[in-house]
Parts: sequence; structure tokens; C-alpha cells
Amino acid sequence: MKKFVNDPKQFVPEMLKGIALANPETIKYVPEYNLIMRADAPNNDKVSLVQGSGSGHEPAHVMVVGPGMLDAACPGDVFSAPPADYVYETAKLVASDKGVLLLVNNYTGDRMAFEMAQEMAEADDVLVDTLFIDDDVAVQDSTWTVGRRGVAGNFFVMKACGALAEEGASLPEVKAIGEKVNSVTRTMGVALTACTPPAKGAPLFDLGEDEMEIGVGIHGEPGRRRAKLVSADEIVDEMLGAIVPDLPFASGDRVALMVNGLGGTPISELYLVYGIAAEKLQAQGIEIARSYVGEYCTSLEMAGASITLVKLDDEIERLLLAPAEVVNRIF
Amino acid sequence: MKKFVNDPKQFVPEMLKGIALANPETIKYVPEYNLIMRADAPNNDKVSLVQGSGSGHEPAHVMVVGPGMLDAACPGDVFSAPPADYVYETAKLVASDKGVLLLVNNYTGDRMAFEMAQEMAEADDVLVDTLFIDDDVAVQDSTWTVGRRGVAGNFFVMKACGALAEEGASLPEVKAIGEKVNSVTRTMGVALTACTPPAKGAPLFDLGEDEMEIGVGIHGEPGRRRAKLVSADEIVDEMLGAIVPDLPFASGDRVALMVNGLGGTPISELYLVYGIAAEKLQAQGIEIARSYVGEYCTSLEMAGASITLVKLDDEIERLLLAPAEVVNRIF
Repeated sequence: MKKFVNDPKQFVPEMLKGIALANPETIKYVPEYNLIMRADAPNNDKVSLVQGSGSGHEPAHVMVVGPGMLDAACPGDVFSAPPADYVYETAKLVASDKGVLLLVNNYTGDRMAFEMAQEMAEADDVLVDTLFIDDDVAVQDSTWTVGRRGVAGNFFVMKACGALAEEGASLPEVKAIGEKVNSVTRTMGVALTACTPPAKGAPLFDLGEDEMEIGVGIHGEPGRRRAKLVSADEIVDEMLGAIVPDLPFASGDRVALMVNGLGGTPISELYLVYGIAAEKLQAQGIEIARSYVGEYCTSLEMAGASITLVKLDDEIERLLLAPAEVVNRIF
Repeated sequence: MKKFVNDPKQFVPEMLKGIALANPETIKYVPEYNLIMRADAPNNDKVSLVQGSGSGHEPAHVMVVGPGMLDAACPGDVFSAPPADYVYETAKLVASDKGVLLLVNNYTGDRMAFEMAQEMAEADDVLVDTLFIDDDVAVQDSTWTVGRRGVAGNFFVMKACGALAEEGASLPEVKAIGEKVNSVTRTMGVALTACTPPAKGAPLFDLGEDEMEIGVGIHGEPGRRRAKLVSADEIVDEMLGAIVPDLPFASGDRVALMVNGLGGTPISELYLVYGIAAEKLQAQGIEIARSYVGEYCTSLEMAGASITLVKLDDEIERLLLAPAEVVNRIF
């Protein structure tokens, strides 16, 4: 295992401590519940947003806490859902008069934790609701999911909900925009290598030197098929061939295009993939109005990438353009 | 080779095309000279900044073009200096009344290309000067360098020069701030894996399953020594043990601390390393005033990280805080 790590059991807490030390004025780390929150949360003038999931998908979600995005993130251990009582404590800590919206990528373990947490918080009279994200077109059900999985498209849901929450919208309004964005967002990923959870110390699955996993999940779970590694052009064809007809996206549509790295693929390759995808979409008459290239939702150090398309309208585009600030800044 | 690539010879041009397609209003790709430039350059009210080097270090330098940073970047092929005549054409394209400053990481091949380009541009009456960056404390001379190498600390030189150039400073003033920042910046890196240039198709060097290269160069060239992989704590001790006494940094100093990923290490591990380094520096009485965690100067998909410290004064801190916009935005 080639990682910067001390005790694998302390991998997540040590990462969270690093996030807080790098952002001492804006971010608070609460070790008791393993959570990261805005230092100024809750703000009673806005709905609070909480996202949680297993760790290993950074910057999602612990590094997207900040104005215009999440109020808190409650991560589990690597690739494990957070405990329901930690989610509940997180919801209570950031509960505002306007309520709390829990955002959850659709994985069965996460659903269970968040649904239990919602019930516990409601019993305490916290105004709370939950929104599930399921943007992955690769498979209908999978190893750890009933229904489609939630993957990198969750960024757009968080961004739109975050922007509308900052404007003072109500909990049902914030949930409704999240559902709307989720309904027009489609993603598919490809893995070129496996990844190694620190506590396991060995790769999660085997992938031959000349193989790739098409439609991989963000924990390395199987997608559509195992195939021989081919050119970037052919990989993009296969990904867009799954994404575009699914909504469907059509000539004349305005879209946001994201190329997301899964953790181990350098940004040079992501821009190469972006260029190929952009030209193919433009050739179909699809207009790219917003571009996102980088790491948004990863699988530790997995080499691979996903493509996400979001069909835009004026409302969604306005919310994507709204200012936001997160932990993981460049400057 | 597990990469998103079509023809390896077209790897760099296809990446550059992707950058331009993702930023159609602000960035121009000039295929004749393989360069990326601000669409609005040159601006005669400011010194133009150009950085070039081999490719494979992205986001450096082709993804840090934009207001407050570079006016243009002229990359070579992967790990190869750009041709002198391309550097010369780049300098001419962005030449402004206030002049052009060429920023160069100290590698012998790059020095040669940029010194020749400066002579050619001067023969055309372009006002031009060159600044060399050599922040790497690992080794005095190395495989491809006389003197110290320039690595991730170049970000701080670009940022300070970029901010001062936007304020309308003269060419000597912009060069002077760059030299000042370089003189108080120190970096050291550690590689956990090798990397594979697309055209070679095989790893650049061999590193055993339980080994790391301490003081690695950004092309995988040897550093101080090969050692057994140890805990993150011990690795950070070794890195800070080389960096801190070198300037030296001392109790009472205010610093910027950067943890830079070399391409294949996930950001979770980078924050873990940041947290360890921050606590160790604070224990020595060194105050961290600015934090940078992410990928700034990489080696393709190499797993590894570098730590950079910059000793701050009011002038440097003001310039680091100035606004800037680059290709590689998050939102």
C-alpha cells in the first residue's frame, strides 16, 4: 500500500483535522461526531445543507463545506456510511429555523443511516427533509444499491441547492430545485485501475493490465462490463453513448459538461477527455454553456474518469453561476 | 499503460485543445506554437508573464493562465523543454509596452531554450527579461540541473509577479518581487510511485513495493536517497527536517504552507499530510498565515507529495491575497 498514512484507523480523523487546520477561521471539525461544519453555522436565515457518505470520495463532501455549498458534511469511514446517530447529531448542530436538508447519494447503507437520522431529528422537532441523488446511468441496481447510484452529478445538486438556500428559499423550495437538477443530470464513469482503502491495505478488486471497468461505481463496484482498454476517443464514445440517449439530451439543448477524475488520473488526461467529449457533443448540436474539469467525486487513488451532463434552463444556470466558497480553494 | 490517450504524440496538443474548449471566452490555443494564452493579451498597461516547461506538470503551467497569473504558457512535450523558437514566438505574441518576463524553473534544458528565446526576442526589440526559480532543497545539482531545481514553489513566484504586474509595476519591479519570493521559498518532495510518459508507455523508473524516493525531482529524477516507506508522520519529519533549517525558518516567522500532490495521490492524503506538517510547524513557533493544499506542480500520475514553505512579509502576503483567475477553476 503506497499511501501517506499513519494508523489506517485514524485516516479519516487525521484528514479532517488537516482540513480544519488549513481553514481555521471558516471551518470547524467536531471529533465527537467526525463532522466538518461551517464555523458560522447555523444561520437562521437559510436552510442548512448536510451531505454525508463514506469517505474516500474527496473533495466530496468534507471539502465542499462553505458559503453557497454545504453547511456540514458527516463522513463515514472509507467507503462506509456514517453512523445514523452521527448524522442525527450533525443535523441538530446545524438545525436552523428554516430547516435542514439532508443530501444523500443513493447507496443503500447511506439511505438507511440518513432515513433513521431524519426520524430521530424529527422526534426532536427539527424541521428536516432528505433528498436522494441518483445520476449514474451505468446500471439500474448494483452491489450496494437498489435503483441508480449517486455519483459526481451530486456536485450540481449541492451547488443549486446551496445557491437557492443562500437566497433564503424555504426547505420545500430548496428540495424541489435539488430534485429538478437531479432529474436532468446524468453520469457515467470508467475505471482504469482499482483503489486501495487504507484499512484493507490491498486493492478492492483486480483489473488486468489491459482492462478497464465501464460504468464503475465510486467504490469500485462493477458497472456494465469489463473490457479491453481502448483509445480515449472510443472510451468517450461509449460513455456519451450511454449518457446522451438516457435523458435524452438533444440538439439545441444547453448543458453543463463535467469531466471528473476518480483520484489517480492527472488533470492533463481529464482535459484531453473534456476536449474529445466537447467536440462530440457540439457535433450533435448540443451547446456547452458551463464546463467543469477536475476532481469532484473520487474513489481514493483510482485511475479513471466520469462524464456528467446537466440539461440547463435559466434557473439552473443562474444557480450554478452564483458565488460559492469551499475548503478546497486554489488560491 | 493505463491512460486516457489517443495517439501519444498528440497527447499535449489534445490536452491544450481541451483547455481552450473549456474556456472559449478567456483562453486561446495557438497550435502553430503549441501555446496557451489569455484571449485578451497583450495588455499594454502591464508586464506580460510567460512560463514554460515540459508538459506533465499540470496544472503548471498551461492551466494557470489568466488574470493575476500568467499571460501565456508555452509547454514542451511531456518532460521536454519547449523549443526556443516557440518560446520566442510566445514572447512576441504577448509582448506589451511594459515588457515580458519569462519565468523558468531551473532545469538545464529549459534554461537553454529560454535564454536563446530571450536573445531572439531582444534582437526584435522586445523588452524582455528572464527569472529562474530554484526552490527545491533536495539536491544541489541533479540529473538535468546545475544548481537547485525549480518545483512547486514556482506557484508563489507566479502569483506574486502576476499580482504586481496587474498593478502596473515595471519589468524590473516585477522581476525583483519574483526574485524575492524565490529567495524565501523552499520545497521538498517524496515519490511513492513512478510515472509513465504517454510516449514511453512504461514507468520512468523502478520503485519497489515498499520503497519511496526522498527528494524526488518532478520528472522522477533521483533525490537524496531511496528508503523504505514509513508512516506519514516520519515522512513529514524528514521533509520538514530538510526544509526548515535550509532558509532557515524560525520561531516567530509567518509562512505560507503548501502541500502539493504529484498527480496520483488523492486529496484526502494531502490534507492528512497538511495537518501533520501544520502541527509540527506550530510546535516550532512558526505561524501559518496562508494554506495551500492540492495539485500545483505534478509529475503525471506519480503518487507523492511535496511540501513548500514561503517566509512571508507584508508585501508578499498582500500579493498572495490579490485576486486571480485561472483555467483550472472549481466552480
